[in-house]
Parts: sequence; C-alpha cells; structure tokens
Amino acid sequence: MSELRQDPTTREWVIIATERRRRPHEFEEASSGKINTADIPEYSKDCPFCPGNEHLSPHETASYRASGTGSNAKGWWVRVIPNKYAALSMNAGDNAALYEGEGVRTVNTDFTGYFFPRATEIFRTKPGIGAHEVIIDTPKHNEQLEFFSDKQIQELFLMYRERYIGLHENSKIRYIIIFKNHGVHAGTSIAHSHSQIIATPVIPLTLRNNISQARFYYDEVGRCIFCDMIQAEIVDGRRIILQTDDFIAFHPFASVSPFETWIMPLNHDPCFANISVDKVKALGILVKKVLRAMYDALKDPDYNFMFNNPPVADEKEDYYHWSLRIIPRLTMKAGFEIGTGMSINTAIPEETAEFIRGFLKS
Amino acid sequence: MSELRQDPTTREWVIIATERRRRPHEFEEASSGKINTADIPEYSKDCPFCPGNEHLSPHETASYRASGTGSNAKGWWVRVIPNKYAALSMNAGDNAALYEGEGVRTVNTDFTGYFFPRATEIFRTKPGIGAHEVIIDTPKHNEQLEFFSDKQIQELFLMYRERYIGLHENSKIRYIIIFKNHGVHAGTSIAHSHSQIIATPVIPLTLRNNISQARFYYDEVGRCIFCDMIQAEIVDGRRIILQTDDFIAFHPFASVSPFETWIMPLNHDPCFANISVDKVKALGILVKKVLRAMYDALKDPDYNFMFNNPPVADEKEDYYHWSLRIIPRLTMKAGFEIGTGMSINTAIPEETAEFIRGFLKS
Repeated sequence: MSELRQDPTTREWVIIATERRRRPHEFEEASSGKINTADIPEYSKDCPFCPGNEHLSPHETASYRASGTGSNAKGWWVRVIPNKYAALSMNAGDNAALYEGEGVRTVNTDFTGYFFPRATEIFRTKPGIGAHEVIIDTPKHNEQLEFFSDKQIQELFLMYRERYIGLHENSKIRYIIIFKNHGVHAGTSIAHSHSQIIATPVIPLTLRNNISQARFYYDEVGRCIFCDMIQAEIVDGRRIILQTDDFIAFHPFASVSPFETWIMPLNHDPCFANISVDKVKALGILVKKVLRAMYDALKDPDYNFMFNNPPVADEKEDYYHWSLRIIPRLTMKAGFEIGTGMSINTAIPEETAEFIRGFLKS
Repeated sequence: MSELRQDPTTREWVIIATERRRRPHEFEEASSGKINTADIPEYSKDCPFCPGNEHLSPHETASYRASGTGSNAKGWWVRVIPNKYAALSMNAGDNAALYEGEGVRTVNTDFTGYFFPRATEIFRTKPGIGAHEVIIDTPKHNEQLEFFSDKQIQELFLMYRERYIGLHENSKIRYIIIFKNHGVHAGTSIAHSHSQIIATPVIPLTLRNNISQARFYYDEVGRCIFCDMIQAEIVDGRRIILQTDDFIAFHPFASVSPFETWIMPLNHDPCFANISVDKVKALGILVKKVLRAMYDALKDPDYNFMFNNPPVADEKEDYYHWSLRIIPRLTMKAGFEIGTGMSINTAIPEETAEFIRGFLKS
C-alpha cells in the first residue's frame, strides 16, 4: 500500500509509492537517450499496450472499440487500464482503519517529557487512496500524437473527459490530473503513446496557493484572474500562437521554461469536467496542431502536457479557469530551481511564440 | 538586462535571462550523458576555471591564494568570479528608473473601457537586479568534491560563508542561495568542479510558504518546527545517516526523491550566515563524507546540493533553521510532478538511509 507523508515544514504531501518502489541498490542514474519511433514497428509482441496483448495488462476500465468486440481483446482504438504499478489506488484503504478523521494518522514518536504532545504529531501520514490509470492513446505502437488522424485525437480527448467525469464521482477524490509524458526526458521510456490520470485524496500545495491567489483576485476585483490574463494576452498579442472561436494557445508572459504553452477556453469555465462534447473535439484538433508545430520547430522534442483544474469540489466555482499546459523538456532544472522553486528561463516568450507561429499548418 | 516577470495567477517571479538567452532556433533537447572525470586531465587549456587560464573568465570577486600571487593569476585554491552569463546582476539597475516603488513596473496593456484600471496591472516586471557568482571549487580540472583533501573542502565551505556574508550586506538583496550542480542530469555540462551563488531581489514563492508554515508553528507552539522535526528524527532514528556534536544528516520522513539528504545544525540556528569558522569547517568534512558514501553506493550519481536559508532580513529570526540539502538526480520529474508540484517517491527513506549507512567511511 502506498502512503502519503506530509513534510511538516511545508505541509506538502509526498506519495511514497511502495507499489512501484525500487530497492536502494536498484537505483541508477536517470535514463537518457531518445526514443525514435521511426525505428520501431507498428506492433510489438512484448508491448502490453499493443492490441492482441491485452492479457499482459490489467483488466480495462474503459475503452472505445468496434461493436462486437469484447473487453480486454483487440478491436479498441482508445483503451484505459489501471496502472500496473499504481502510485495510488482504491485498495489502499485496506488499512484505513488505522487512520482517523480526515484519514490522517500521526506517527507516535514516543517523546518523553520534554515536548508538548503536539510535537508527536509532526509526522503525518495518510493511506495512498486514489486512482492511477493509463490511457493507451492509440493501438499503433509507433504512432505519435502529432500524427494522429483527427478522429483519433478527438476520441482520445473524449476519453480524457469521460475518465475525469468517471473519477470525480468518488467522494474520496479531491483532485484529478490528466497528463502525458512523451520521451525519456519527460519521464517515460515506454515508446507506445499513452497518457495517465491520477486522482489524489489531497490538494497539492501548489494548487492551494493558486486557489488562494485566484480567490483573492476574484474577491477583490470581482472577475476571474485567468480571464483577465487572457484578455491582456490578446491585447498584447505577441505571445499568441493560435486563437479559435473557443480556445487560445499562447506562451505565457511569465513562462517558466522555453516554449511553455498554455491552451485555455476563451469563455470562462472553471473546470475541464464541464466541457461539451463538441468543444472537447475542437480542443483535440487544436492540441494536435500546436504539438505538430513544436515537433517541426524543435525536431520532435520530449514533452509533458497536463490539465490544470481546480479541486473536484470547486468545479463550478467561478474563481478558477482550467488550462492545458505543454512543457517541452529542453532544459534541466538545476540547484537554483530545485532550491528556490523559481525558474530561470533562457528564452523570451515573445520570440518563441513568433518562431512557433512560423511552423503552424493551417 | 535580465527581467523578472511575475505570473499573475501564482504571484511567483520568473527570471527571463536575456544574458544567457538562446534564440528560438537554438533550442535542442536537454543534453544527457555522463561526464567521466577519470577520462579527463588535471588541467585543460580551454577551461576558463583552470589555473593559468584566468584571462578566459571575468575578474575575480574573491579568492584564497598563496601569498605573493596577484589576483586573476594562478596561485589560488578557491576562486570566485561573476557568472559570465549572469541570470541577475547589479548592472541590471541601468533601466531601474523605469521602475517605481518596490522596483515593480506594470506593463501597460492599453485596455480600453471594459476593464477597471487594476486589470492593466496584470503583468508585473522588475529589473534583474541581484548577483550571480561562480565559485571554482578546486584548481584541479578533474577533481571531484568527494575526493577533496579535508583542507580543500574546508576552504570551499569557508568561501561559501564569506560570499554569503559579502552579498547580504547589499540592501537590494532579499534572498541568497548557494548551490552546486554536479553532472549533466543536474544541469551542468562543465566538468571542472564549481558551485554557484545567486542573490535575488525577491523572495521565492516556495520560501514564502515555508516561512508562513514555520512562523505559524512558532507562534502556536513556541518552538522552531525544524528543531522539533530534528528531535522527531532522532527519536525515530531509522532515517539518520550520520550525527556529530554539531550536525545531523538524514533522509527526511517525507523525502520528495530517492536518497534526498538534509544536513542541519543540531543547535537552533536560523541562517547559515551565523555559522562560526570552526563549525563551517566541520560541516565541510561532514558533507564530503556523506557525498562520498553516495558516490560509492550509487556509483557517482549526478546531484545538486543547495543551502536552504530564510530571507536575508530574517537571518536572526527564531522561526527558521537552515539546512543543506543534497538531491541525487536518479529519477526524472514527469507530468504529475510538474503539474501538481507533488512528488511520487519510488524509494522508502528508512531503506535508503540504512543502505547509505553501509557505505559510510569513518
């Protein structure tokens, strides 16, 4: 069972992932190198994500598949399975009786005399309750998202929506993040294109801060800070990549890394969970277009993208405004960034946006 | 001139580093691979950090050198120079007249009518005032810190102290971080061992949160949260690597990454600036010992270490307690970590600490 532990000095939670843990002697340097999908076949017999190999993976949670095909068999074009090495899971509740109240347990550190009782509460833990799913983006082992058909990318984004909505019903879930890791520098060595979704029983500290900033602005100014920021980006214009009736894609004014890209709905909407079927399809097409421009401009960079949403409980609250954020992994975080949390960006967003616009296909 | 920009949605500042910027077409994948110091000579004629090549680097800020040798010539054993591509510098103030009050400038985004004036203040900037220095740890091109003589490591740590104290006198400086990047995965491709020090005119958001948590605890409980945490680590004992009369080294209860190590003074001390000469020497020896154990246990991992201090103005405030933190770069951050700020740690601190203890030399 995974365990959440709280740093007493920051109040941030960490997932100690026992399901995917490595023994101390098994740690090697972070892997590096490049996955070149041009060199790999459309089907790999050892890949648990390839059609026909469904027996190599856990039973599916959801799939879009040809009628007449059975679950856990081929015939699907998007497939969702529990992560085999889940960071969080609903089964983690087996020991939940040990935990009280909000599910928090304080580790008894047997202080004797010197400290007040409070000091024994320094180390707080929670059971690793939540969900961790893998979304297999495509049946083709060597197909990158930038080259999906319009239909395929739309179905993938529909599945993102479906799984978000599926998970947010669970009362133990407080936050849900959908993300994709592409390439070794982005934290995956699995070639077959896939996305992930993690649902947590806590609200990340970073989000707690974002919430408090957005709420403060909403209370003071009476509007959504993100709406105002979008408006300011439009007025300035230099950092916009692409704008449609429904969405805007831009390199933010205070980008933390080169070519960081935010995609947001133009009309105020707190959470991705509220998106319509038509708009989620349009979003998929837009994301593909932006990723393809990056692919051409930066020669297939490794990247992460992730949805930024409010906590589940605040999906209808007006202070927040969802986004999808793409981070190409072109630089390494070093001591300054790790130590301060601040970033040194060696690119100027106005310049990178102009550069990317030159690679957009209509 | 570098520029600080503030993300309006988080209130975090980003350094847009024009001095070290790359043009959009110059971005390549983050580099990878391994620097093997066994394969390189003690002196390299092209290395700006090697003795005899002082003309290749900016004029030195400080050095420890043999008597009778002149500055910017050989004869030194620790040498400090301004970073040639400084993220922040004191010269950045040339345009400071553009900035008002706290040095903040709001970018006029020419809103017309629809918005209240406040909305025009969404994009805030500050000039990139501060300092960015390189500390050349050793004259030897191929000598790693783990193998320094006791004298050399002591002198390096004395220089850390000297430069911190040198910089904190400047009233424009609000925060100072000393750090070291070792290896490509830690964000450096320069083989010659060096450390860095960056002094910022803003307080990083992460630190602002740490301060507020520590202050809250101090106000409520009447003690330093870090002192109580150290006490709890001692009572538990399983995560301690090494303890001396003055310092403790341990893998924290809520470590965010495998083999993360904190080294802290046992006696309460808010800031590294207050350390005595004797203790800074003892600290150097201890850090070398811990890094050497990691070198042996993890086969020369890339790593960062950084000092965690309170803001300059709070160096004597009792709520904080400094630490030195070592982060071996054994895993990659992926979409979950970037998107949430939370971490999934695939190691258990109790196990990694036990493993490292087995590699400690007396």
